[in-house]
Amino acid sequence: MNKNITVILGDGIGPEVTQQSVKILNAVADQFGHKFTYDYQLMGAIAIDKTGNPLPDETIASCLKTDAVLFGAIGDPKYDNDPNAKVRPEQGLLKIRKELNLFTNIRPITIYPTLSHLSPLKNEKLQGVDFLIYRELTGGIYFGKKSKSEDGNSASDDCTYSSFEIERVAKLAFEAAQKRQKHLTLVDKANVLETSRLWRKVVQKMAASYPDVTVDYLFVDNAAMQIIINPAQFDVVLTENMFGDIISDEASVLSGSLGLLPSASIGDKTALFEPIHGSYPQAAGKDIANPLASILSAALLLDYFNLTEEANLVRNAVAWTLEKGFVSKDIDPVNNYSTNTIGDLIKDFIENKI
Amino acid sequence: MNKNITVILGDGIGPEVTQQSVKILNAVADQFGHKFTYDYQLMGAIAIDKTGNPLPDETIASCLKTDAVLFGAIGDPKYDNDPNAKVRPEQGLLKIRKELNLFTNIRPITIYPTLSHLSPLKNEKLQGVDFLIYRELTGGIYFGKKSKSEDGNSASDDCTYSSFEIERVAKLAFEAAQKRQKHLTLVDKANVLETSRLWRKVVQKMAASYPDVTVDYLFVDNAAMQIIINPAQFDVVLTENMFGDIISDEASVLSGSLGLLPSASIGDKTALFEPIHGSYPQAAGKDIANPLASILSAALLLDYFNLTEEANLVRNAVAWTLEKGFVSKDIDPVNNYSTNTIGDLIKDFIENKI
Ligand SMILES: [Mg+2]
Ligand SMILES: [Mg+2]
Repeated sequence: MNKNITVILGDGIGPEVTQQSVKILNAVADQFGHKFTYDYQLMGAIAIDKTGNPLPDETIASCLKTDAVLFGAIGDPKYDNDPNAKVRPEQGLLKIRKELNLFTNIRPITIYPTLSHLSPLKNEKLQGVDFLIYRELTGGIYFGKKSKSEDGNSASDDCTYSSFEIERVAKLAFEAAQKRQKHLTLVDKANVLETSRLWRKVVQKMAASYPDVTVDYLFVDNAAMQIIINPAQFDVVLTENMFGDIISDEASVLSGSLGLLPSASIGDKTALFEPIHGSYPQAAGKDIANPLASILSAALLLDYFNLTEEANLVRNAVAWTLEKGFVSKDIDPVNNYSTNTIGDLIKDFIENKI
Repeated sequence: MNKNITVILGDGIGPEVTQQSVKILNAVADQFGHKFTYDYQLMGAIAIDKTGNPLPDETIASCLKTDAVLFGAIGDPKYDNDPNAKVRPEQGLLKIRKELNLFTNIRPITIYPTLSHLSPLKNEKLQGVDFLIYRELTGGIYFGKKSKSEDGNSASDDCTYSSFEIERVAKLAFEAAQKRQKHLTLVDKANVLETSRLWRKVVQKMAASYPDVTVDYLFVDNAAMQIIINPAQFDVVLTENMFGDIISDEASVLSGSLGLLPSASIGDKTALFEPIHGSYPQAAGKDIANPLASILSAALLLDYFNLTEEANLVRNAVAWTLEKGFVSKDIDPVNNYSTNTIGDLIKDFIENKI
């Protein structure tokens, strides 16, 4: 398989973790006879420094014609601390999401038994936890009409959804459920909100086309409880933008380390893969960052290319490093390995050298 | 002190748990020389059965002229399972909230060390957890304008807040913080929502009048994480209606038992005190229900009357029963005590007989 991948290293630890992912993708390509061609592009603080623009046109053009985008992290404190800064690194990410119309965000929640001591939850709650959150990413109250009264004493936000917006993300979630445990949970507040009732109506109607998928419904307040008291009940969770923001961040703490969590954002044209962690500038250039969230994002990219065996091999390699204790400083402050060494070990595992 | 209390026993386990609370309030009155006069009124399924109305006018009239309302629980499966039921028990509760204009809901989150094995969180996360959530209860998106397009393919919900609505709940939260650790956390999404920016503006302005209170701000998605990874950081949490619904339910699982959680709802006229648990019809009449959420709601009622010493004595008595293992079946399925016995033990503790 020949594929083009636009690589955006970004800021802070973005370059060093993303370089490990490229190393892994190359090892996968060698082992399985694929050819991945990389087009390196700028975004974020580094793009401002070099071009004055957090998202240069060339980056957009590359992303629009590529097969997938692998992205590192964005943000630099020198812009955060300058209230007069006219352009900010984060604008680059918001703009690329818009350009690519990334309407679905996917976050896998996976537990690694050897890290269960880092989780805030008791070990028995973590048994069998393995789910995906499908969050609608371009609609709802975050993108609704905002208004403020003239005297400044009243404000409002509008939350609107159309059947079309719900269908396209729900389709992806149903398809994901079909490949997994065939269980989809819609999180809404249909006892109160009109938009939630539309979500429920659309999903109920679509369910007829996926007879192999069991669909259930949870109110968002109950979901916020269930994620803590019984997270193993979930397979694929589907929800609107704001509820997805809240419950995916809540669920992200279960694994015990944000350094492990990848994400995929799917649009009409190109999909983008990135760790959920930030640019962590304090660690940049020190070869101490955890590369696993980026490497697991690369695994999601392989899934997206339907290279399931390859993606699973990468995930197995990651699980193996965790089991063997080949972990970065954020996971074990005493016995730890460098970013680059962890990348090499995963590469060796993929190449059957270990 | 002479006070009138309207008692609404309600449905399911409501009567038996609320009767324990009345027993405790009487013990407190005897010990401290107060006089509480009770006016028993109907609401819920029992009110439908007896009068055809889930909230009879007589109940409303009593609640409007009383000093406080102590309420049990609402709901009966015979109405849930009847799709033709024209009136439902729950309508009574919604209507009384409206009649009393209960604009603030308060939920204390308290951890009892002897129950930490029931919490989904690791023990070390529970150390020092003791906070109050102040949730705005009559505004925001739950009560906003709802609309649906004619073809049914689009729906919207409006979220509106006025400075006035924010000020009255924020005032109560600031005052509570002054009596506690002097730390108020506003939970909002001010980086995205116009209403959240109004909340932040109003609270920032009010903060000047409470110089002894430290105010900080958390985005709701981050708050959903912090409640799990570091719940001990909170003292008083203030938030809007929907965020409060989500995070107060999330926080309610920390203690390990919903049977322990009281609530207060404050309005212009009268305040209402109730356990957060439901009517639990399977347990009704068996003398096995946990009376602690109701008894702790009675403690909040004493707080509301500014009877702080009395309220603390009730809370100490509750903590003592938990320490000594005088617990109901939901807490310990093997060695447990009846609803009535637990009430008696707390009464004896208050009367210095133990
Ligand atoms: Mg978030
Ligand atoms: Mg709720």
